[in-house]
Amino acid sequence: MGEINQAEVERIFLSAPFIRDLGAKLVAVGPGECRSSLTLEARHLQQDGYVHAGVQATLADHTAGAAGATLIEPGQFVLSAEFKINLLRPAKGSLLTCSAKVLKPGSALTVVESEVFCGPIEDLRLVSKATVTLAILSPRADR
Amino acid sequence: MGEINQAEVERIFLSAPFIRDLGAKLVAVGPGECRSSLTLEARHLQQDGYVHAGVQATLADHTAGAAGATLIEPGQFVLSAEFKINLLRPAKGSLLTCSAKVLKPGSALTVVESEVFCGPIEDLRLVSKATVTLAILSPRADR
Amino acid sequence: MGEINQAEVERIFLSAPFIRDLGAKLVAVGPGECRSSLTLEARHLQQDGYVHAGVQATLADHTAGAAGATLIEPGQFVLSAEFKINLLRPAKGSLLTCSAKVLKPGSALTVVESEVFCGPIEDLRLVSKATVTLAILSPRADR
Amino acid sequence: MGEINQAEVERIFLSAPFIRDLGAKLVAVGPGECRSSLTLEARHLQQDGYVHAGVQATLADHTAGAAGATLIEPGQFVLSAEFKINLLRPAKGSLLTCSAKVLKPGSALTVVESEVFCGPIEDLRLVSKATVTLAILSPRADR
Repeated sequence: MGEINQAEVERIFLSAPFIRDLGAKLVAVGPGECRSSLTLEARHLQQDGYVHAGVQATLADHTAGAAGATLIEPGQFVLSAEFKINLLRPAKGSLLTCSAKVLKPGSALTVVESEVFCGPIEDLRLVSKATVTLAILSPRADR
Repeated sequence: MGEINQAEVERIFLSAPFIRDLGAKLVAVGPGECRSSLTLEARHLQQDGYVHAGVQATLADHTAGAAGATLIEPGQFVLSAEFKINLLRPAKGSLLTCSAKVLKPGSALTVVESEVFCGPIEDLRLVSKATVTLAILSPRADR
Repeated sequence: MGEINQAEVERIFLSAPFIRDLGAKLVAVGPGECRSSLTLEARHLQQDGYVHAGVQATLADHTAGAAGATLIEPGQFVLSAEFKINLLRPAKGSLLTCSAKVLKPGSALTVVESEVFCGPIEDLRLVSKATVTLAILSPRADR
Repeated sequence: MGEINQAEVERIFLSAPFIRDLGAKLVAVGPGECRSSLTLEARHLQQDGYVHAGVQATLADHTAGAAGATLIEPGQFVLSAEFKINLLRPAKGSLLTCSAKVLKPGSALTVVESEVFCGPIEDLRLVSKATVTLAILSPRADR
């Protein structure tokens, strides 16, 4: 677990159109870990002025995928099989960040936890937490 | 349950900036039910060309919120407490639609199921399914 | 999907000690479907007189496993990777039943939905619903 | 959050018939935290010799309820609204333990995380992790 699959992590963050459109950035990456951030704009909100749960879910899911991808073999890729997210408090502020850590790596399934924080930069609070199950796929596998 | 809270449903879909930015539209609404659709563009995809799980989750969550809101009292509003989504197959196509139905209404919590379909218009397939727990809030409640 | 793996379904229900201890019975089985029931006793309750969420979860998970197992190849077996259950209303009555249906079969992952009903026999109500992700395993797989 | 509702925690563990039947014991309790254990017997297993997911789910859910109950007012009680559990590896051993911690307390909803460990006493490993949403109820509330 010394070397991480940095190339795949960068591909996941830099070549995903929806992440670019949203404005999310890769902040840091390590073995089984990934952090990301998103500068919030009015377009990220829902009807009552809070950050839309879908924005939080997108950042949680995508950052989890990148955290899981740090541990895969070259040529493999990850695909979210399912995730669950708890919206813990209304999210308001100028910044949304996510910290994802692999809870259990596996050759077929990897489970990752993502914590999402929001607020002014100097006072970020945990606003949601997700558990993401990733399927580890190989191009050659007949599945 | 005869009259539905049409005003709140329309507010949820028309005044949520992230939904407008995404391009999702309200298609139909009934007691405890809501349907929506999204014409897919390249910006909605992830790094491997599939519709991003976050786009599917956003549509599933938001349409569930609208379905739940059909049954609330004037002055109340809904907020997602948590949701879980299973990504059943890779999503590809020109259209994403969502059909949400209340599984169990409640005065404090309402549980809604959302099915998300994707494909060419003539051959939409179920690509994901979510279960969403909504908190029913009143402006006066001290929470 | 013509022939179902009846042998594996019966093994799952008849040889699982916890299911025998609980008292749950296999009621019916078909391709991608399974139904079970449990005659409720005082020992199945929690501290306020309702059927314990763990009893409901056990029946939902186990019946989902059997439903998924109807579709697997001889020699394969299923293992729950994760599940989510919504407890929709307090469960009271003399009988608990479960109806599980495969939502999406797969060669590696199968997703099953389980509905749990409770009440007197003549008036069973939906008390909980679970979504279960099963891993499909083969003895030879190195995992 | 100084005083904890010890009476309610003890009632939850000592007067729940299914927990007594299972054999689970309260180990420790603190503000927003609870630990429990279960000496494993053959009757707790599923058909392949692993601890049944339902046993793990029961311990995770119940211990979460007790952790959440440490923070409620006298007269209030908790009821699981939903939970999700990831079965991370097959569970084998003589002991099952659970450590539950409140992630976010609330006046209406409290979210708790439960980690379940299994193995021989000297080498317990994390086998599953659950996220539990508890509804906080008062006898007087009309719901």
